[in-house]
Amino acid sequence: MTSTSETPVHVPAASPKRAHGPAKYLPILAWGREYNRGTFSADFIAAIIVTIMLIPQSLAYALLAGLPPQAGLYASMAPLLAYALFGTSRALAVGPVAVVSLMTAASIGALSLDSPQAYWGAALLLALLSGLFLLGLSLLRLGFLANFLSHPVISGFITASGLLIAASQLKHILGISAHGHTLVEVLHSLWQGLSDVNWTTAGLGFSALAFLFWVRKHFKPLLKRLGLSEGVAAAVTRAGPVFAVFATTLVTALFSLEEQGVAIVGNVPNALPGFSLPAWDMELVQMLIGPAILISIIGFVESVSVAQTLAARKRQQIDPNQELLALGAANVGAAFTGGYPVTGGFARSIVNYDAGAATPAAGLFTAAGIGLATVFLVPLLYFLPKATLAATIIVAVLTLVDFSVLKRTWAYSKADFAAVLITILLTLTRGVEEGVTAGLLVSIGLYLYRTSKPHIAVVGRVAGTEHFRNILRHNVETREDLISIRVDESLYFANARYLEDAVYDLATQSAATKHVVLMCSAVNFIDASALESLEALNHRLHDAGIMLHLTEIKGPVMDRLQKTELLDELSGQVFLSHHQAISSL
Amino acid sequence: MTSTSETPVHVPAASPKRAHGPAKYLPILAWGREYNRGTFSADFIAAIIVTIMLIPQSLAYALLAGLPPQAGLYASMAPLLAYALFGTSRALAVGPVAVVSLMTAASIGALSLDSPQAYWGAALLLALLSGLFLLGLSLLRLGFLANFLSHPVISGFITASGLLIAASQLKHILGISAHGHTLVEVLHSLWQGLSDVNWTTAGLGFSALAFLFWVRKHFKPLLKRLGLSEGVAAAVTRAGPVFAVFATTLVTALFSLEEQGVAIVGNVPNALPGFSLPAWDMELVQMLIGPAILISIIGFVESVSVAQTLAARKRQQIDPNQELLALGAANVGAAFTGGYPVTGGFARSIVNYDAGAATPAAGLFTAAGIGLATVFLVPLLYFLPKATLAATIIVAVLTLVDFSVLKRTWAYSKADFAAVLITILLTLTRGVEEGVTAGLLVSIGLYLYRTSKPHIAVVGRVAGTEHFRNILRHNVETREDLISIRVDESLYFANARYLEDAVYDLATQSAATKHVVLMCSAVNFIDASALESLEALNHRLHDAGIMLHLTEIKGPVMDRLQKTELLDELSGQVFLSHHQAISSL
Repeated sequence: MTSTSETPVHVPAASPKRAHGPAKYLPILAWGREYNRGTFSADFIAAIIVTIMLIPQSLAYALLAGLPPQAGLYASMAPLLAYALFGTSRALAVGPVAVVSLMTAASIGALSLDSPQAYWGAALLLALLSGLFLLGLSLLRLGFLANFLSHPVISGFITASGLLIAASQLKHILGISAHGHTLVEVLHSLWQGLSDVNWTTAGLGFSALAFLFWVRKHFKPLLKRLGLSEGVAAAVTRAGPVFAVFATTLVTALFSLEEQGVAIVGNVPNALPGFSLPAWDMELVQMLIGPAILISIIGFVESVSVAQTLAARKRQQIDPNQELLALGAANVGAAFTGGYPVTGGFARSIVNYDAGAATPAAGLFTAAGIGLATVFLVPLLYFLPKATLAATIIVAVLTLVDFSVLKRTWAYSKADFAAVLITILLTLTRGVEEGVTAGLLVSIGLYLYRTSKPHIAVVGRVAGTEHFRNILRHNVETREDLISIRVDESLYFANARYLEDAVYDLATQSAATKHVVLMCSAVNFIDASALESLEALNHRLHDAGIMLHLTEIKGPVMDRLQKTELLDELSGQVFLSHHQAISSL
Repeated sequence: MTSTSETPVHVPAASPKRAHGPAKYLPILAWGREYNRGTFSADFIAAIIVTIMLIPQSLAYALLAGLPPQAGLYASMAPLLAYALFGTSRALAVGPVAVVSLMTAASIGALSLDSPQAYWGAALLLALLSGLFLLGLSLLRLGFLANFLSHPVISGFITASGLLIAASQLKHILGISAHGHTLVEVLHSLWQGLSDVNWTTAGLGFSALAFLFWVRKHFKPLLKRLGLSEGVAAAVTRAGPVFAVFATTLVTALFSLEEQGVAIVGNVPNALPGFSLPAWDMELVQMLIGPAILISIIGFVESVSVAQTLAARKRQQIDPNQELLALGAANVGAAFTGGYPVTGGFARSIVNYDAGAATPAAGLFTAAGIGLATVFLVPLLYFLPKATLAATIIVAVLTLVDFSVLKRTWAYSKADFAAVLITILLTLTRGVEEGVTAGLLVSIGLYLYRTSKPHIAVVGRVAGTEHFRNILRHNVETREDLISIRVDESLYFANARYLEDAVYDLATQSAATKHVVLMCSAVNFIDASALESLEALNHRLHDAGIMLHLTEIKGPVMDRLQKTELLDELSGQVFLSHHQAISSL
């Protein structure tokens, strides 16, 4: 995301901070009203560029998902229309993406269905379940649940998925058959198939791969040296896969390479998608509901991140709850038009943004472009080698692979590091669903662990101020008969008993101690278990001849405590500030 | 737990705060060395009283667990010896208890085993798994995990279990057969069996029930009016079940009521338990491991609560980690001597304590007493009606039923209330395992929810002090060009994005705002996701021409931040105290 060339375009209006009325739920009402010639031509140009990029991508991702090529094209029409109606991002480009395609392949592959029709049917059902789940989250305003997937876990998951995808595509490059949903399975399967390599396919595949890597690294600098502007050079570079598709298709057709065993795309129906009805088989639903939830959450998180990044550049706003609705509608759209699960794509949205897309209308035009291409262009792709599509996937996903998250989290937080490492290892060795689930559970588990044994500091006064800090870190004033303890956590069931014992032990260390002053500035709530522990602590300290005082209790916490007997039973007093307590005791 | 009559006894020594060396792991080395005649006679008397109470209880709980009566007796010998060696509580009485017996019945009942031998074998395996799990927790020092079961959830679970147990025992009182592991199933089953009521059994059963309720309510006051001391009156009252056992056994034998269909205990082998080897069947292990974990945690939490309550009264200390070891050893002991899962009992420990038990030796003597009773006394219980045992269970468990926790949590915290309510409802309608698991997950879920949308306050200075409080709650001083925001939560993945948006929105509300000062006194850590959000916030505010300052960052948080680029990139400054920031900006 280094390219930020912005074509100067009249944006209809600075997005309002929060939309109201019907426009809140149908943002097209807001931007559509102010649509004009300038935005039209900006959107139109962006749509052409995205369409060119999307044709090989959608064929390739369908291949990755284990579906016929047209499923990818179908998933690039209706979902784009749905997002254009409901979405709040002005640059997000929806459609089939790599990670979701991999997850689709993993979840449906696990069902061992016997026919390609049944497989595609399951993909439709998966898209429907995913769409309904997203709509449900939107309705119940539960979008915040997606935040429980931490950034490092997502980074680790994307990196591992990228590796897994790249490995799984090698079979197409080599022209052998291989299978498996973990890195070990895939590599083992490839190893066993090595004797069957089709050298013609491999020649084509590795050429395409080498070309695409070269384009990505060296083509743009070359074009710029030739005098092209940054923007044009970038756009031409993005079209690299199109050149590869064109060249390898031509070579295959001219030399009839399919007769030498080069797998080709073959006949793709040149018709727009019809209405498809996912089969509502309860057994299948039960098996797909888990994967559908994971796919939805991963897709949503990825999509919203891209949308927010791009919106921030133009000071626009994304409404995450409305995004749930829009992505839900997009997936339901995919389910009824022969597609499979979709979400907002990273590279594609950047291209859309850089190409100047000003409104979601660019998505409408892209959908139209894909429709035209399906009817008029796809028949020309009869001889397109699958190896070329695999090469485009490999080059695309390897940009997702970034192990630096391991280094960063290792330096900053071992808990985050552990969550990332487990996510990566499990994704590679056990599969995508296991990996992301483990990452989620481990990060929640480590968070709970951390809060269950919170930091406790004995504090003293910073001389000459009313400020109190840890006696171990600062040169502060303390008193013989009084100990000031700051608990750095909310008090709740998981830490209540631990804190009760820890404070009691600190308070009874010195026989001179007569007052314990508990500084509650970091206590954001006290639950019923912790209330019991506080009552117990009060009694135990009282029995030991020590008074318990509380200071800096926050408003919401105090509101609750006033309903209880703790404040009446407290052996000491409650002070607004810690300074007041120390002054008056 | 209102009775606190303390017999004056010489306690060997004030327990050291923390034991060290071998005595840490074998507390008998500490208290055994100082054992004397005084403690011996105190322990001996307590043991006699507990033994008398335990004989009918252990038979009854075995019945509740679905096991032959002797299993209850066996579970009251070896486990007591093991606890006496390793336990740190001086008054805790271990053995079969109501809730664990119910959970045993539920988990083994679900296996649909075909023979009583297989059922008992599964109970042995359950005890072994439970013991090994507890030992594992002790070894890995993971006892804190038990804290994740909040107090209200446990109260709710115990209340619901009590109701469930009482309902399940009605069949013995009525002399009909009934089954089921949920309240609905049990009541439905009882309803269907109503036409088969054995009126002789019912007569005996309801008489025993009425007698036991009367004893519990009115006998102690009566005895005291007759001139008996509080202690003696309490002890005699506790022996109520023994009178009931004696009377109903006698009546049944004299009138040969067993010929009229009164179910009797019958032949119980009058021998000490032999060595039993639980069958290590992997399939069975897999099915029992989940229930074993739940039983262990529930048992441990209950046991430690009782032990801590009693220890606090004499200013003694409990080492929760050593308690895991002791309870683990007790369960392994039960597994190898024909018992079933055990833990520290509530009522029994109170009796032991009130009767003057001074050391765990009381447990040794109790085990010996149960051994003697098994050999010499149990044959006399041939005619003991099962209805009488059911009556003792019902009276015992109804004291556990206490719905006041619903009222208390409703008033104090709706989240705790929700967790309790769900625990109670699910325990009654779905079963014990489902109930306690749901309670655990709901309380963790609500905690996470609460921290994912934390309280944020705009603060101002309390006039004349260096103290800052919420502008909505206090009369404080604020400034036009500067907004002070206090975030009342640690920053982590679940709330990072929410807080980023919330702070940004607050900061950009007024065009006059030039400085945002984030008061971090309640921020106890910042994870990698939140660090990214802070960096993003810094950039976004910078773009909006607003400087971001941080104050009152805690030591451990600062240590981490210093490893990152945030502090260099920060548009504003970092201040030790909020007061300093406001003064110098």
